[in-house]
Order: sequence, then structure tokens, then C-alpha cells
Amino acid sequence: MLNHATLKKEAVRRVNTQFLSAERVAEIINRKGIAECIAGVAAYIEEDFLRWNDFDKCARVANHSAVGVIELMPVANARTYAFKYVNGHPANHRYNLPTVMAFGVLADVETGTPDLVSELTITTAIRTAAMSAVAARALARPDSKTMALIGNGAQSEFQALAFQHLLGIETFHLFDIDANATDKLIANLTRLGLKTRRFSDTRKAVKGCDIVTTVTADKTNATILTPDMIEPGMHINGVGGDCPGKTELHADVLRQGPVFCEFEPQSRIEGDMQQMPADFPVTELWQVLSGEKVGRSYADQVTIYDSVGFALEDYSALRYMRDVATELEMTETISLIPTLANPKNLFGFIADKRDAQGPVRAAVALAA
Amino acid sequence: MLNHATLKKEAVRRVNTQFLSAERVAEIINRKGIAECIAGVAAYIEEDFLRWNDFDKCARVANHSAVGVIELMPVANARTYAFKYVNGHPANHRYNLPTVMAFGVLADVETGTPDLVSELTITTAIRTAAMSAVAARALARPDSKTMALIGNGAQSEFQALAFQHLLGIETFHLFDIDANATDKLIANLTRLGLKTRRFSDTRKAVKGCDIVTTVTADKTNATILTPDMIEPGMHINGVGGDCPGKTELHADVLRQGPVFCEFEPQSRIEGDMQQMPADFPVTELWQVLSGEKVGRSYADQVTIYDSVGFALEDYSALRYMRDVATELEMTETISLIPTLANPKNLFGFIADKRDAQGPVRAAVALAA
Repeated sequence: MLNHATLKKEAVRRVNTQFLSAERVAEIINRKGIAECIAGVAAYIEEDFLRWNDFDKCARVANHSAVGVIELMPVANARTYAFKYVNGHPANHRYNLPTVMAFGVLADVETGTPDLVSELTITTAIRTAAMSAVAARALARPDSKTMALIGNGAQSEFQALAFQHLLGIETFHLFDIDANATDKLIANLTRLGLKTRRFSDTRKAVKGCDIVTTVTADKTNATILTPDMIEPGMHINGVGGDCPGKTELHADVLRQGPVFCEFEPQSRIEGDMQQMPADFPVTELWQVLSGEKVGRSYADQVTIYDSVGFALEDYSALRYMRDVATELEMTETISLIPTLANPKNLFGFIADKRDAQGPVRAAVALAA
Repeated sequence: MLNHATLKKEAVRRVNTQFLSAERVAEIINRKGIAECIAGVAAYIEEDFLRWNDFDKCARVANHSAVGVIELMPVANARTYAFKYVNGHPANHRYNLPTVMAFGVLADVETGTPDLVSELTITTAIRTAAMSAVAARALARPDSKTMALIGNGAQSEFQALAFQHLLGIETFHLFDIDANATDKLIANLTRLGLKTRRFSDTRKAVKGCDIVTTVTADKTNATILTPDMIEPGMHINGVGGDCPGKTELHADVLRQGPVFCEFEPQSRIEGDMQQMPADFPVTELWQVLSGEKVGRSYADQVTIYDSVGFALEDYSALRYMRDVATELEMTETISLIPTLANPKNLFGFIADKRDAQGPVRAAVALAA
């Protein structure tokens, strides 16, 4: 008869799942520098978008309720699987909770082992801003100097930093229906040395800007931007319209220029494009990055990036955070998977723990 | 100008995510008793199956590779959302890793907050056995005393305990192509006081048994049971055939009696039923539990439970483990979601951490 001690002598493969808590990610960002992190995630996104066809992609799996949505976003290539859990609850401020909270996982395709569990609330803010900057570098006028930021909530500082650092934007025109949100954004950006101007409505804020970023949170079909506000040569970075019933751009704004998206099947359902017919022309951004398709054709053209957030960006962001945590020797682990002396003896894992803690209420007693 | 200290004075809603590690779950099981846990999970499953129509259900989302599969299994009712991450890699024993590893989450539908992250490798073994017992209580002959266990791997002890404790099975007939697996199972069951008999092939093992449980792991269309092995009155508990290309029962076995499943759209793709035409009759188990449909009609009838494992069972198992951890005061927490003084000031969370750790490489320096 085998006993557990004998089994224990076999080679044991310990499953260590790295864990990055919200606090740890904040520490990593501060050690590395936030602008550096946004630039790093942007570089990882570009790298992954250039191998677009290596990935097994699908639209996210959403559970909708009356007050919000909870989504799972999986993606994988031959080596690494990733998924993100993310919610969207616009009324969460009533509970003093963030609208969007997230975490994610990297796993090994060869064995299915989860290698990393990480917070993604902070990291998603960085990856969304990085993605916007990647798109704008390919689509906005290279001489862009001013950007309007419509919506001054949790994502707005990250957008400002990304565009300042990666596109050289010098001045930010701010508007939000919540004056406190704008107060907060001005305080944070001023502290970082960024130049801001406050406006009393969207029309005034966007006037004369090279780039317009909309990043509002209401789960409604809004028209934050109307066609008359759009000027020749503007690049529209539409971030907030990202799920069915949640749009920011008037349909005629989308008709003013070529529209670019991440993953077409998902963007047609979730993006501002949900307002348009199924044959409305759109270009996937990876095709512009790879040189297969043209981005901006001329200086006075209006370009529109209809951002919704795609699983591959989280894959890139998780990869980046894991690599930086390793580089800075800031990794922790959690025990998510039992380490088994014999993989077929899962029961032995429980029995061994019982032996270790003493037979408080042993299975053998119950089975008698 | 606002500063972070001011923001901190507002009411703060701390997000505590409970965490149950593999070791902690093993301790909980030992404190509570393993048979008691299986019975508890079975009771929670029955409770949830009786409110079947309250749940938003979908087939699992699978990423297949040449060597295995990684799946996400979400389910929700109006209050609670759950999902499980689970892999299936039959060749993992080469790396001394379990074939199946899993973890899962419970979240609050009202706010999207993840309330619990738990290991599910051990818990899945318990819930699968509990589910088999729930089905067999509804379908097997009440006077059943012997069960064949074909496949003596990681799930087999849990099946034996569930059927001993919840159905009064007295003797287990064992067979596995891997003699070491049977050695291990006999060692573990003998230690628990359960009666076993070892056989040299499947045919001999199932002969004369009241219940036959197949729980083999090969990702192949196998015929573990052929029609000539099936005796009048047998209940077949088919556990191992659970994904496309992975079956255990000869098609003619399925034709010998009424077939029952968990969630029909998923079982037609993943169960042994994948071999049958789309109109092959099947009954969802919740309808038998609720009294809407008949289970076993007469003593000599052959009944077949084509188990694949459904997200709702994990929802039940996660609920049970959370409740028991709370009852035993064995909860831990992890910081998956940042606690924000002002939900719109996510950036402030990073800035506060920077202030606390000192400006190693501050954002303000980089932004200059």
C-alpha cells in the first residue's frame, strides 16, 4: 500500500502563480515612472498588433444587468493565454466605487497553468491611454499641439500623460459636466507640469484643437460631439463609447472621415459604429500599423479612432507589468493551484493537510 | 487646488476581495469533513438547480490548442455573478502537473465588485462528485449497493466518497489502465474505511454493479462502455466525456435508456451526446429535480447521466466554500481592486503611493 510520504518523494512541480496587487502595481508604476510605463505598454501593444494573425480572438463575453455589465475578455496565441475580468457600472460613484474595476490572468497554453494574476483597474487605465496614443501616432497630424479632453474622470490623467509624452501635446482643453472632476484633473495635471485650460462646454473646449478625446462614462446614446464642432484636420479619439447603448459621437461625425477600430466584429457591436449600417467602412488599426492600409491621407482630413478596448491590449499590458515586476524584483506569489506530489492524487493533498493540522474532523470518521 | 490629503478625508469604500488558496480550502475541508463538504455542495447545487430559470446561462468559452483547452465559464443571477477558469490538458502528467486546474470568482452584480477569488482545483473535484450524486439520487435505483469506478485518477476518491455518503454505496469495483492509479485509489479508500475490489478490465469491473461511473481522462473518442456490458437497472454516471472529441460511451449505450444532462446546448457539444443527432432526446436534470419530468420509470430501466460540468455547479460550490470559510472564520483577503478616496481619481491612488514610497522616479520628472 502506498502512503503519502512515499508519494511525496517523487519529483514535485510547484505551481507558483505570480500576484500583482493594486498597491504593488502602483509601486511598480512609481518606480518605473508613469509616462515610461505608458510608453512601455504602447510598445508592447504595437509589437502584439503587428502579429495580429497569430492570435485566437473573440468578442468579449458580457453579462448585462439593469445597472451595468460584467465582461470576460480572453485572447491567446500559441504560447500565452490571457483574459481580463472587467465591469462597467456608471452609477458606482453612489457607492464611492470606481465605474470600472478589473483584474486579469496570463496562463501557459502548453499546460493551462495560470502564471500571473494581476490587478487591471490601474493597468487598464494605462493600456487604454497607451492604445489611444498608438492610434493617434498613426492617425493624427504629426504637428498636433492641443487636445480637448471631454470627460475628466478616472481615465483622463492617463490620456493627458500619454498624449503629452508620446505625441508632444502641449495644452489640454478640459470640460466635464461634473466641475469637481475637472477640479481634480487640473490639480493632478498641474502637479505634473502639464498645461490646462478649462472651458464651460464641449463646443468651446474642442474649438481649434488638433485632437479631441471623448472619455465620458454615461451608459447612454449621447452626442458629445456633433458634426458642426468638427474642424478640418482634427483627429477624434473616441474612448467612452464602448458597449451596446453607450455612444458619444453623432452618426454624422463618423461620416466625416475614415473610421479606424481595433477588432471589427467587436467594434461594430460596442463602438460608436453601432449606430452605423453593417457595411459602413472601417479599417482595423493593425493594418495601418503594419503598412497594409493607409491611415491619414492628407493634413485636412478628419480621422476617427472608435476605441472600445480589446483583449489583446490587456494581453500586452499584462505582459509588460509581469516583465517590469520581474526586472524590478517586485514579484509576489499566491497559491491558487495545489502542488501535488502525484498529479493523480488530488485527494492526497487534502489528506496531507489533515495530517499536518491534526484530525479535527477527519474524513475517515465521517466515512465510518 | 485640491490635494490628495483633502480627497482622502472623503468617505472611503474599501474593496476587500476574499481569497481562498488551495491550502486554505484543504484546511476548510478537513475542518468541516470531506463527506460533509460534498453533501453541503450537493445541497447548494440542488437549491440552485431548483431556481434554474433565474440564471443567465451560456455555453463555456473555450480556447483550444493542440495539447489542451482553457475555458471560462460565467453564470449569473440578479444578485451574484460567478465564473470559473479551468484547463484540460491530458498530457500534463508528463510535467507532473494535474490534468485539470481551476480557480473562480464570485462578484456582486449591483456594482461589479469581485467579492471572492478561490482555488477551484480541489473544489471542482468536490462539486463534480456532488453533482454526480445529485443526479444519481434522482436517477439510480434506491437500493443500489455497488458501483464500478472506471478511471482511478484525481476525481475517483471524490466520486467514491460522494456515492458512499449520499447514496449508501457499499462496495467499489475499480479498474484503470494505469495500475498505479488504482494502487493510489485503493490506498486512499482503504484508509477511509471504504470497501474496494480490483478488476483486470472494464467488463469484469462493471459486471453486476448497480451504478457505473466512467471518469477517464484521454482526449479521444473512446468506448469505455459498450452495449453488451450494460445490465438492466444500471445507472450510468458518465463523467469523463466532457469536451468535443472526448467521449467514453459507445453510441448504442446512449440508446439503451433515457439520457439526462445539465444544460442541453452545452451537453450536445461537449457530452457523450456529441455522437448523437441533434434531435436525440435528452432531459435537463433540473426538470427532474423540480418534478416537471420523470427520472427513472421502473427498476429495470437503464438511466444515463451524461455529465460535462456546468458553470452553475461552480457557482454553487463557490457559494458553499465562501459560506463555510465565513462560518469557520477562515477568510483571508487580497488587494485586487484599488481603494480610492475619490472613485474618479484613480490617478491619485498612484500619486499617493508615490508620496508614501518617496519619489524614486516620479511622473513629474518624466513629464518635464
